[in-house]
Amino acid sequence: MFELLKTDPHSKARLGRLTTSRGVIDTPVFMPVGTQGSVKALDPRELLEMGTQIILGNTYHLSLRPGRDVIRAAGGLHAFINWPHPILTDSGGFQVFSLARIRKIQAHGVEFRSHLDGSLLFLGPKEAMAIQRELRSDIAMVFDDCPPHTSTSRELRAAVERTKRWASECRDQPRATGQLVFGIVQGGPDTALREECAKALKSMGFDGYAIGGVSVGEPEPEIFKAVELTEPFLPAHLPRYAMGLGTPAQLVELVARGLDMFDCVLPTRVARNGTAFTRKGAISIKAGAFKADFRPIEEECACYACRPFSRAYLRHLLNVNEILGLRMVSVHNSQMYLKLMADIRTRIGAGTFGEFRREFIANYLPTRRVLSARANAER
Amino acid sequence: MFELLKTDPHSKARLGRLTTSRGVIDTPVFMPVGTQGSVKALDPRELLEMGTQIILGNTYHLSLRPGRDVIRAAGGLHAFINWPHPILTDSGGFQVFSLARIRKIQAHGVEFRSHLDGSLLFLGPKEAMAIQRELRSDIAMVFDDCPPHTSTSRELRAAVERTKRWASECRDQPRATGQLVFGIVQGGPDTALREECAKALKSMGFDGYAIGGVSVGEPEPEIFKAVELTEPFLPAHLPRYAMGLGTPAQLVELVARGLDMFDCVLPTRVARNGTAFTRKGAISIKAGAFKADFRPIEEECACYACRPFSRAYLRHLLNVNEILGLRMVSVHNSQMYLKLMADIRTRIGAGTFGEFRREFIANYLPTRRVLSARANAER
Repeated sequence: MFELLKTDPHSKARLGRLTTSRGVIDTPVFMPVGTQGSVKALDPRELLEMGTQIILGNTYHLSLRPGRDVIRAAGGLHAFINWPHPILTDSGGFQVFSLARIRKIQAHGVEFRSHLDGSLLFLGPKEAMAIQRELRSDIAMVFDDCPPHTSTSRELRAAVERTKRWASECRDQPRATGQLVFGIVQGGPDTALREECAKALKSMGFDGYAIGGVSVGEPEPEIFKAVELTEPFLPAHLPRYAMGLGTPAQLVELVARGLDMFDCVLPTRVARNGTAFTRKGAISIKAGAFKADFRPIEEECACYACRPFSRAYLRHLLNVNEILGLRMVSVHNSQMYLKLMADIRTRIGAGTFGEFRREFIANYLPTRRVLSARANAER
Repeated sequence: MFELLKTDPHSKARLGRLTTSRGVIDTPVFMPVGTQGSVKALDPRELLEMGTQIILGNTYHLSLRPGRDVIRAAGGLHAFINWPHPILTDSGGFQVFSLARIRKIQAHGVEFRSHLDGSLLFLGPKEAMAIQRELRSDIAMVFDDCPPHTSTSRELRAAVERTKRWASECRDQPRATGQLVFGIVQGGPDTALREECAKALKSMGFDGYAIGGVSVGEPEPEIFKAVELTEPFLPAHLPRYAMGLGTPAQLVELVARGLDMFDCVLPTRVARNGTAFTRKGAISIKAGAFKADFRPIEEECACYACRPFSRAYLRHLLNVNEILGLRMVSVHNSQMYLKLMADIRTRIGAGTFGEFRREFIANYLPTRRVLSARANAER
């Protein structure tokens, strides 16, 4: 199912190939986020053109709207949204703990009120797996307890206990045909808890492992720390997924730390405010400096936004609130992430990832604006 | 420049061909509206795929943002927005009289305050033609006085006097290479004024003639009346353009009244509220009835929205405010308008337009919602 093709001699970077029932995914891979059944502002054709291998969907959001019954009647999420390639669905754990008003955490799940209309709902391992079975996703995630980064040791311990128990329950649920299931390691910044959780999940035998409880508002060093604490306890022969991360520079660093799969709302989220990612850092296309700048966002970029359109035109569109502006920056940013991962794969394959990493990080200037947007990004 | 290929034996419908420096336009033609340099929510590729022959731009809006200097530096509007086919630019007269706060109507134009920042500006025949020259549009419109439909006889008379004088001034301005200039007939519902204005403009020798002062909030019978009053005085061998109109059924009726060119914001405007045009009338895609309706908006439609997406999915996207929803309804509605005109051309060519008109009008149920949106539509 997962083939480890090559490991970088100077870091933990890995080149791999994940085979699902709907196709093969080359790793490291970035997965554009389609929380509500649409990668924001983009259409499937644009996603295919930019080389998207797999997208995300979300159990919590999709079960609220349009509802399980509609997607089941459509024949699953792929048919409903017209996406031919693999889909990974998040379990809804993160959303229940971050978006919903929790009424009661129970042994087999969480009673909560919808963030939309306050209706009383219940989601646990059994329900999350049943919904993902109906969505017919290619990769389902276990239902986990994802506590905030401000949690006490006691709260972290309780979250890990629940995450382990719920993972085990998820493991025993029926799956859609060919559906893979990934475990999610929690434990915050606590070394012992991360190790314990990783080992427990490993013993349950999932198809892949995710590092959860990152991208929950913590500073960057804590993200890397949690990943570094967890990675050694994950099986080397299975895919590893860093949930909800990150900036382009963070992705390069996470690949170097042995992670294979990534998802993040940043490329499309910051696009809607006019921020574009380039190999040299993020730039604000609305800036006055671009008023009569007729170069594309990035000279060497082959995306549908950079071929025909100038910074000056995109700036104008953003300034007058024309949808085409945020659409085209969303296209560019998503393609930038996907191309970055493709380049990383090439360089790992060629044995020159170390050089690529040094050059990329040296050239890339992170901006405060983007980092603060990341801190607020939901998974 | 304009070739009249065929006239319908049972109505005034005409099949024609208008040659501009950037290509040939088959008439009757619908021109998608790109007021600010973008047909709302659509990209140039989508417009080309749906058979768009010509789009509109607006002198008033584009001169405020991004400004003449930027578009001049870009090498004109086509280069700035990446549109290879003809562009017609409206003169800004309508916007000055409907959007801006007028400070003083003077002999050679209007002193007004920008609707954006209140800055004091001046637009008249000379300025409007100079801007359109810089935009390098293929068809420029004269700067006219477009009074509201509630105007008194005295006000209508004054508007016609100004429109005539300003048209003559526009006629004498230099043009961009190959640029055609169309006159605009005003006069409201007044037979004598319409005749007088049309004859005066005709004597000035424009490349085409528009009927203005329609689509200014008046009821449908008044629209048709103004067109019927004006059309007999327009030269038969030149293109006739009904400004800012209309619904699909109105377009069919206006073609039957001898009009060749149309523009309207309706297809993209109502799309943003989830209203889709079909051959049977407008439908609200958000309606609960479509919750699990997996048919496309229109079964026989070949547009990019109808091929892959169901009503149920589009309804979901609109309900959760995903941009793809309004994008796809904008695609469908624009294609519906363009296909309607293509069918009209085929039927005039085949001598069966009368039959087509009867059938179309019999099947088409206009909705109150769409008509009220039209009444508020700016040109």
